[in-house]
Amino acid sequence: MKIVHYEDVEADEAEGGSKLKMRFLNTEGSETFAVRHCEFEPGGCSPSHSHSWEHEMFVLEGQGVVVGDNETRAIVAGNAISIPAGEKHQVRNTSEKTLRLLCMIPK
Amino acid sequence: MKIVHYEDVEADEAEGGSKLKMRFLNTEGSETFAVRHCEFEPGGCSPSHSHSWEHEMFVLEGQGVVVGDNETRAIVAGNAISIPAGEKHQVRNTSEKTLRLLCMIPK
Repeated sequence: MKIVHYEDVEADEAEGGSKLKMRFLNTEGSETFAVRHCEFEPGGCSPSHSHSWEHEMFVLEGQGVVVGDNETRAIVAGNAISIPAGEKHQVRNTSEKTLRLLCMIPK
Repeated sequence: MKIVHYEDVEADEAEGGSKLKMRFLNTEGSETFAVRHCEFEPGGCSPSHSHSWEHEMFVLEGQGVVVGDNETRAIVAGNAISIPAGEKHQVRNTSEKTLRLLCMIPK
Protein backbone atom coordinates (compact mmCIF):
# COMPACT_ATOMS: atom_id res chain seq x y z
CA MET A 1 0.00 0.00 0.00
CA LYS A 2 1.02 3.60 -0.43
CA ILE A 3 -0.02 6.30 2.04
CA VAL A 4 0.58 10.03 1.71
CA HIS A 5 -0.77 13.08 3.49
CA TYR A 6 -2.21 15.55 1.03
CA GLU A 7 -0.17 18.36 2.60
CA ASP A 8 3.02 16.47 1.72
CA VAL A 9 2.13 16.31 -1.98
CA GLU A 10 3.48 19.10 -4.15
CA ALA A 11 0.78 21.55 -5.19
CA ASP A 12 0.56 23.12 -8.64
CA GLU A 13 -1.46 26.08 -9.80
CA ALA A 14 -4.32 24.65 -11.84
CA GLU A 15 -4.20 25.60 -15.51
CA GLY A 16 -7.01 28.00 -16.37
CA GLY A 17 -8.02 28.40 -12.73
CA SER A 18 -7.53 31.26 -10.29
CA LYS A 19 -6.26 30.97 -6.71
CA LEU A 20 -6.56 27.19 -7.10
CA LYS A 21 -3.93 24.69 -6.03
CA MET A 22 -4.14 21.09 -7.20
CA ARG A 23 -2.44 17.98 -5.87
CA PHE A 24 -2.51 14.58 -7.58
CA LEU A 25 -2.84 12.12 -4.69
CA ASN A 26 -2.59 8.77 -6.44
CA THR A 27 0.04 9.12 -9.12
CA GLU A 28 0.87 5.45 -8.56
CA GLY A 29 -1.40 2.50 -7.91
CA SER A 30 -4.56 3.35 -9.77
CA GLU A 31 -4.97 2.24 -13.36
CA THR A 32 -8.45 3.61 -13.88
CA PHE A 33 -8.97 6.96 -12.19
CA ALA A 34 -7.16 9.91 -10.62
CA VAL A 35 -7.87 11.51 -7.24
CA ARG A 36 -6.98 15.19 -7.04
CA HIS A 37 -7.09 17.49 -4.02
CA CYS A 38 -8.24 21.01 -4.94
CA GLU A 39 -7.76 23.99 -2.65
CA PHE A 40 -9.48 27.27 -3.53
CA GLU A 41 -8.56 30.49 -1.78
CA PRO A 42 -11.42 32.96 -1.20
CA GLY A 43 -12.43 34.20 -4.66
CA GLY A 44 -10.69 31.27 -6.33
CA CYS A 45 -12.26 29.25 -9.13
CA SER A 46 -11.66 26.45 -11.61
CA PRO A 47 -11.99 27.16 -15.34
CA SER A 48 -15.49 27.02 -16.79
CA HIS A 49 -15.24 24.07 -19.11
CA SER A 50 -16.66 20.76 -20.25
CA HIS A 51 -15.02 17.54 -21.35
CA SER A 52 -15.79 14.04 -22.49
CA TRP A 53 -15.28 12.43 -19.06
CA GLU A 54 -17.26 12.71 -15.85
CA HIS A 55 -16.22 14.40 -12.63
CA GLU A 56 -16.99 13.20 -9.15
CA MET A 57 -16.27 15.66 -6.34
CA PHE A 58 -16.52 15.58 -2.56
CA VAL A 59 -16.34 18.76 -0.49
CA LEU A 60 -13.93 18.41 2.44
CA GLU A 61 -14.05 21.89 3.92
CA GLY A 62 -15.70 25.24 3.26
CA GLN A 63 -18.39 26.31 0.86
CA GLY A 64 -18.92 27.74 -2.59
CA VAL A 65 -20.94 27.17 -5.74
CA VAL A 66 -20.84 25.05 -8.88
CA VAL A 67 -21.89 27.00 -11.96
CA GLY A 68 -23.38 24.93 -14.78
CA ASP A 69 -24.97 25.86 -18.09
CA ASN A 70 -28.38 26.51 -16.61
CA GLU A 71 -27.97 26.48 -12.88
CA THR A 72 -25.77 27.61 -9.99
CA ARG A 73 -25.80 25.29 -7.00
CA ALA A 74 -24.43 25.88 -3.50
CA ILE A 75 -21.96 23.33 -2.09
CA VAL A 76 -20.81 22.72 1.49
CA ALA A 77 -18.58 20.21 3.29
CA GLY A 78 -20.07 16.73 2.98
CA ASN A 79 -21.59 17.29 -0.47
CA ALA A 80 -20.89 14.78 -3.24
CA ILE A 81 -21.18 16.28 -6.74
CA SER A 82 -21.53 14.31 -9.96
CA ILE A 83 -20.87 16.10 -13.24
CA PRO A 84 -21.81 13.92 -16.22
CA ALA A 85 -19.57 13.81 -19.28
CA GLY A 86 -20.07 16.80 -21.55
CA GLU A 87 -21.71 19.07 -18.96
CA LYS A 88 -20.23 22.54 -18.44
CA HIS A 89 -19.10 23.31 -14.89
CA GLN A 90 -17.05 25.70 -12.81
CA VAL A 91 -16.36 25.65 -9.05
CA ARG A 92 -16.12 29.01 -7.29
CA ASN A 93 -15.19 29.76 -3.71
CA THR A 94 -17.71 32.47 -2.80
CA SER A 95 -16.80 32.45 0.90
CA GLU A 96 -14.17 34.16 3.04
CA LYS A 97 -12.49 30.86 3.94
CA THR A 98 -10.60 28.14 2.10
CA LEU A 99 -12.64 25.66 0.08
CA ARG A 100 -11.15 22.17 -0.23
CA LEU A 101 -12.53 19.29 -2.25
CA LEU A 102 -11.53 16.03 -3.88
CA CYS A 103 -12.07 15.72 -7.60
CA MET A 104 -11.95 12.27 -9.16
CA ILE A 105 -11.70 11.65 -12.90
CA PRO A 106 -11.18 8.53 -15.02
CA LYS A 107 -7.71 8.06 -16.50
CA MET B 1 -25.18 18.00 -12.16
CA LYS B 2 -26.28 16.00 -9.17
CA ILE B 3 -25.48 17.05 -5.61
CA VAL B 4 -26.20 15.09 -2.45
CA HIS B 5 -25.04 15.38 1.13
CA TYR B 6 -23.57 12.14 2.35
CA GLU B 7 -25.78 12.23 5.45
CA ASP B 8 -28.85 12.17 3.19
CA VAL B 9 -27.74 8.95 1.47
CA GLU B 10 -29.08 5.73 2.95
CA ALA B 11 -26.41 3.80 4.83
CA ASP B 12 -26.05 0.02 4.73
CA GLU B 13 -24.08 -2.26 6.99
CA ALA B 14 -21.05 -3.34 4.96
CA GLU B 15 -20.99 -7.07 4.19
CA GLY B 16 -18.23 -8.80 6.11
CA GLY B 17 -17.44 -5.69 8.13
CA SER B 18 -18.16 -4.77 11.74
CA LYS B 19 -19.61 -1.48 12.99
CA LEU B 20 -19.16 -0.16 9.46
CA LYS B 21 -21.77 1.82 7.52
CA MET B 22 -21.37 2.37 3.79
CA ARG B 23 -23.03 4.89 1.50
CA PHE B 24 -22.75 4.86 -2.29
CA LEU B 25 -22.51 8.54 -3.20
CA ASN B 26 -22.55 8.43 -7.00
CA THR B 27 -25.06 5.80 -8.00
CA GLU B 28 -25.78 7.90 -11.09
CA GLY B 29 -23.46 9.87 -13.34
CA SER B 30 -20.23 7.92 -13.23
CA GLU B 31 -19.58 5.21 -15.76
CA THR B 32 -16.13 4.26 -14.58
CA PHE B 33 -15.79 4.31 -10.80
CA ALA B 34 -17.80 4.35 -7.57
CA VAL B 35 -17.32 6.70 -4.60
CA ARG B 36 -18.34 5.22 -1.27
CA HIS B 37 -18.49 6.91 2.13
CA CYS B 38 -17.41 4.57 4.94
CA GLU B 39 -18.11 5.28 8.60
CA PHE B 40 -16.45 3.11 11.24
CA GLU B 41 -17.57 3.22 14.85
CA PRO B 42 -14.84 2.74 17.48
CA GLY B 43 -13.69 -0.86 17.12
CA GLY B 44 -15.23 -1.13 13.66
CA CYS B 45 -13.44 -2.69 10.70
CA SER B 46 -13.81 -3.71 7.08
CA PRO B 47 -13.30 -7.34 6.09
CA SER B 48 -9.72 -8.46 5.52
CA HIS B 49 -9.76 -9.24 1.82
CA SER B 50 -8.15 -8.76 -1.56
CA HIS B 51 -9.62 -8.38 -5.03
CA SER B 52 -8.67 -7.82 -8.62
CA TRP B 53 -9.31 -4.06 -8.58
CA GLU B 54 -7.52 -1.22 -6.82
CA HIS B 55 -8.80 0.87 -3.93
CA GLU B 56 -8.18 4.54 -3.43
CA MET B 57 -9.13 5.95 -0.04
CA PHE B 58 -9.08 9.39 1.57
CA VAL B 59 -9.49 9.83 5.33
CA LEU B 60 -12.04 12.53 6.17
CA GLU B 61 -12.11 12.32 9.96
CA GLY B 62 -10.55 10.30 12.75
CA GLN B 63 -7.76 7.78 12.78
CA GLY B 64 -7.10 4.06 12.58
CA VAL B 65 -4.89 1.55 10.80
CA VAL B 66 -4.74 -0.32 7.51
CA VAL B 67 -3.60 -3.90 7.95
CA GLY B 68 -1.89 -5.47 4.94
CA ASP B 69 -0.15 -8.77 4.40
CA ASN B 70 3.16 -7.64 5.80
CA GLU B 71 2.54 -4.29 7.42
CA THR B 72 0.16 -2.29 9.59
CA ARG B 73 0.08 1.43 8.82
CA ALA B 74 -1.49 4.26 10.82
CA ILE B 75 -3.94 6.57 9.02
CA VAL B 76 -5.27 10.00 10.00
CA ALA B 77 -7.51 12.64 8.42
CA GLY B 78 -5.88 13.96 5.23
CA ASN B 79 -4.20 10.68 4.30
CA ALA B 80 -4.67 9.28 0.79
CA ILE B 81 -4.23 5.50 0.63
CA SER B 82 -3.64 3.49 -2.54
CA ILE B 83 -4.19 -0.27 -2.42
CA PRO B 84 -3.01 -1.94 -5.65
CA ALA B 85 -5.08 -4.70 -7.21
CA GLY B 86 -4.56 -8.05 -5.50
CA GLU B 87 -3.14 -6.67 -2.24
CA LYS B 88 -4.76 -7.80 1.02
CA HIS B 89 -6.09 -4.99 3.20
CA GLN B 90 -8.34 -4.25 6.16
CA VAL B 91 -9.24 -0.89 7.73
CA ARG B 92 -9.68 -0.80 11.51
CA ASN B 93 -10.83 2.05 13.70
CA THR B 94 -8.47 1.74 16.66
CA SER B 95 -9.56 5.04 18.23
CA GLU B 96 -12.35 6.11 20.56
CA LYS B 97 -13.97 8.32 17.92
CA THR B 98 -15.68 7.81 14.57
CA LEU B 99 -13.44 7.15 11.55
CA ARG B 100 -14.80 8.37 8.22
CA LEU B 101 -13.20 7.89 4.81
CA LEU B 102 -14.01 7.84 1.13
CA CYS B 103 -13.25 4.64 -0.76
CA MET B 104 -13.17 4.77 -4.55
CA ILE B 105 -13.20 1.69 -6.77
CA PRO B 106 -13.51 1.16 -10.52
CA LYS B 107 -16.88 -0.07 -11.79
